[in-house]
Amino acid sequence: MKKFINKVDDILLESLSGFAAAHHDLVRLQLNPNYLVRANKAANKVALISGGGSGHEPLHGGFVGYGMLDAACPGHVFTSPTPDQMLAAAEAAEGGRGVLFIVKNYAGDVMNFEMAAEMLPFEHATVITSDDVAVVNSTWTTGRRGVAGTVIVEKVVGSLAESGADLAACKALGDKVNSRTGSMGVALTSCTVPAAGRPTFDIGDDELEMGVGIHGEPGRRREKMREADLIVADLVAAILEDLKPASNAEILLMINGFAGTPLMELYLLYNTAAALLKKQGLNITRSLVGNYTTSLEMAGASVTVCLLDDEIRQHWDAPVHTAAMRWGR
Amino acid sequence: MKKFINKVDDILLESLSGFAAAHHDLVRLQLNPNYLVRANKAANKVALISGGGSGHEPLHGGFVGYGMLDAACPGHVFTSPTPDQMLAAAEAAEGGRGVLFIVKNYAGDVMNFEMAAEMLPFEHATVITSDDVAVVNSTWTTGRRGVAGTVIVEKVVGSLAESGADLAACKALGDKVNSRTGSMGVALTSCTVPAAGRPTFDIGDDELEMGVGIHGEPGRRREKMREADLIVADLVAAILEDLKPASNAEILLMINGFAGTPLMELYLLYNTAAALLKKQGLNITRSLVGNYTTSLEMAGASVTVCLLDDEIRQHWDAPVHTAAMRWGR
Repeated sequence: MKKFINKVDDILLESLSGFAAAHHDLVRLQLNPNYLVRANKAANKVALISGGGSGHEPLHGGFVGYGMLDAACPGHVFTSPTPDQMLAAAEAAEGGRGVLFIVKNYAGDVMNFEMAAEMLPFEHATVITSDDVAVVNSTWTTGRRGVAGTVIVEKVVGSLAESGADLAACKALGDKVNSRTGSMGVALTSCTVPAAGRPTFDIGDDELEMGVGIHGEPGRRREKMREADLIVADLVAAILEDLKPASNAEILLMINGFAGTPLMELYLLYNTAAALLKKQGLNITRSLVGNYTTSLEMAGASVTVCLLDDEIRQHWDAPVHTAAMRWGR
Repeated sequence: MKKFINKVDDILLESLSGFAAAHHDLVRLQLNPNYLVRANKAANKVALISGGGSGHEPLHGGFVGYGMLDAACPGHVFTSPTPDQMLAAAEAAEGGRGVLFIVKNYAGDVMNFEMAAEMLPFEHATVITSDDVAVVNSTWTTGRRGVAGTVIVEKVVGSLAESGADLAACKALGDKVNSRTGSMGVALTSCTVPAAGRPTFDIGDDELEMGVGIHGEPGRRREKMREADLIVADLVAAILEDLKPASNAEILLMINGFAGTPLMELYLLYNTAAALLKKQGLNITRSLVGNYTTSLEMAGASVTVCLLDDEIRQHWDAPVHTAAMRWGR
């Protein structure tokens, strides 16, 4: 294991401290329990709070700020945060309009956010993201996994919340975006959880894991390495089989890197995916390419398709100002 | 070599095509000769044109757009672009106020941009970036190498050019920023040039290359892997020895990833570097953390310090709208 670290036990705190220092204009870091919250508390809006295991950066702390999240609760690497974190974050972020939790569908996260919700002294609701079409149940999941599509949910609902919409409307839009979003990923290498010190799984120099989870969970099958065009064709086919878009549907196409794959390759994947989707008659009007939902240093990437409509597109385009996503201000 | 590619010969074209498609609102791709140019040509400003070998994305194409570059000329992976590319890009981008080339100091790039400059039918000047304090001469360099500090030069001069300043002023500010910027990097792994098919250099599981170049060129020395704090201390010391900042100087601190190192580790490096620089009495008022000048899939990172003044800070803060850097609009 060769990483830029000091002591394994200190990684999370040192990384969060660096993040908060570099973005002190945007976020404030609170410790014991740990959460990141906007530097300037927003008033009179639903508070959007997400969280999950660390190691997926910029998810979720990188999306705290105007037009997106109000707070994020980072667990240890690939480990759910605990209910006291969500409770403290909610206390800090709630502004009289209630709390919406946005939770990726993993058993530990769902359970801990549920426990926090039960103790919450505010009106609240939860959106569970489950955009990964690869597998129905997985190592840590009942039902589908929540992966890179979570970023789209956070951006779109973040805009609606910023506009002053109520909790029910935010919850409804989050569920709608999730239901219209499908993702699937592929790994070329494993990742190494620092506390474990060895790769999460073994993979040969000529192999890939099709449908991999963002914690290195098994996907659909182990396959031989092959041309990018063939890999992307399988990912796109699986997503379209799930979403069943109308011909000529308007979509957002996201190519998400797992951290170890360079932009040069991500744009090559975009090129192929866009050509395939256009051939299916789909109309790509919005795009996002980069490392948004990562898996430590894993080499690999995922394709996400979101079926846009006027409402989703409008909130996607709305101004956002966070560490990892910024436009319009 | 496990990469998302089809044929090795097609990587660059497919990746550029994907980039241009994903960012068609910002850039237009021209082929034979290859260059990226703003989708909407800017009038009445000095045209800023950069370029260099590919494999360092988002440098330089990711910085074409309002407030930064007018055009970028991508060579093959780790190979200088050719003079016909710069000439064609200048023809497309020039708007009556002349052309400023921004060139990283590598022998091939400098020679090819010089040849283009000699043939250019426009008023022109060149800023050579040479921020890497690691070594004086290197594999492909006479003098110091241009590395991640180039991004700061492009951003700051981009703002000045956008304001309507003349060629001499843009050239002078570029040289000033370069002279006030120092960088040094460290590699934990090599990278693999696709056409070569094998790692550029061998490095043990317990080794690092201190002062590595962005093409995997040798640095100051091969060392044993050690704690992040000790690695950062050496990088910061080398930079400060070079820049010799006044006590209480105002600085921009950049932690640049080489692509294979996750954000979690880059922010940990920021945390350490910021603490060391503060201990030296320096005042960090601006920060940038992420993958901005990469080396294919290399695991590693560099530290860059830029000595700010009112002029540089003002142009750093000015609005920018490119694929890889955006704020204020």
